[in-house]
Amino acid sequence: MRLTAHTDYSLRILLHAALVAKEGPKLLSIAQVAYEQRISRNVAMKVVSMLAEVGLLETVRGRSGGFRLGRPAEEIGLGEIVRLTEPRRNAGDGNNCGLTAMLSRATNAFLAELDGLTLADAAASRLRALLI
Amino acid sequence: MRLTAHTDYSLRILLHAALVAKEGPKLLSIAQVAYEQRISRNVAMKVVSMLAEVGLLETVRGRSGGFRLGRPAEEIGLGEIVRLTEPRRNAGDGNNCGLTAMLSRATNAFLAELDGLTLADAAASRLRALLI
Repeated sequence: MRLTAHTDYSLRILLHAALVAKEGPKLLSIAQVAYEQRISRNVAMKVVSMLAEVGLLETVRGRSGGFRLGRPAEEIGLGEIVRLTEPRRNAGDGNNCGLTAMLSRATNAFLAELDGLTLADAAASRLRALLI
Repeated sequence: MRLTAHTDYSLRILLHAALVAKEGPKLLSIAQVAYEQRISRNVAMKVVSMLAEVGLLETVRGRSGGFRLGRPAEEIGLGEIVRLTEPRRNAGDGNNCGLTAMLSRATNAFLAELDGLTLADAAASRLRALLI
């Protein structure tokens, strides 16, 4: 089971912003997040724009501008992020509707698991890993 | 969330074989399954070989040869099929290990849901849909 690159980048950029948010109301720059997450600036810019559009990030314009989390990390569920960024699964052709319904149930179980986890949980787990 | 084309073909070919198995010990041909599932013969042949190798299909050589389910449909879990055909997820880099662990929990929930379903369930659901 794979997530799109777009979802992967979104999760990583949001986690990055959640970790920075722990240090105060600092702004992140596209250049910085692109460098640290090893993605192109162009892609980072697109992902940040999309996440800002839906309110998960907040952007500040100007010379000392940048972006930060749009809501507290405790209130951003991982399921919400994945639902926003993953393309909808096709309904499938009628020939395989039995399978499609079953895969759709399994996808719901996947998302339900992520609904129980927030960006704050991911950030805490990342910090714990650093201390080990 | 997407499955590979290889998993999709495997599920469809196995479901096809499960539906045919309901009609008796008939053999399916590659040509027939490729035509009905709209996949190339070449791909169908590769998928059938792989499924036969792991015992999910049984092949019979010769002029009137073909393939059929290798085990009763009631004993083939959908989770087992997906585990066999999906590539393993990379462990991810250390930078995002919090996320990786959480996605891995969600993947387990996805597979656990499929573990509760068999090819026989998918076949029954397909037949019910035909009757509506």
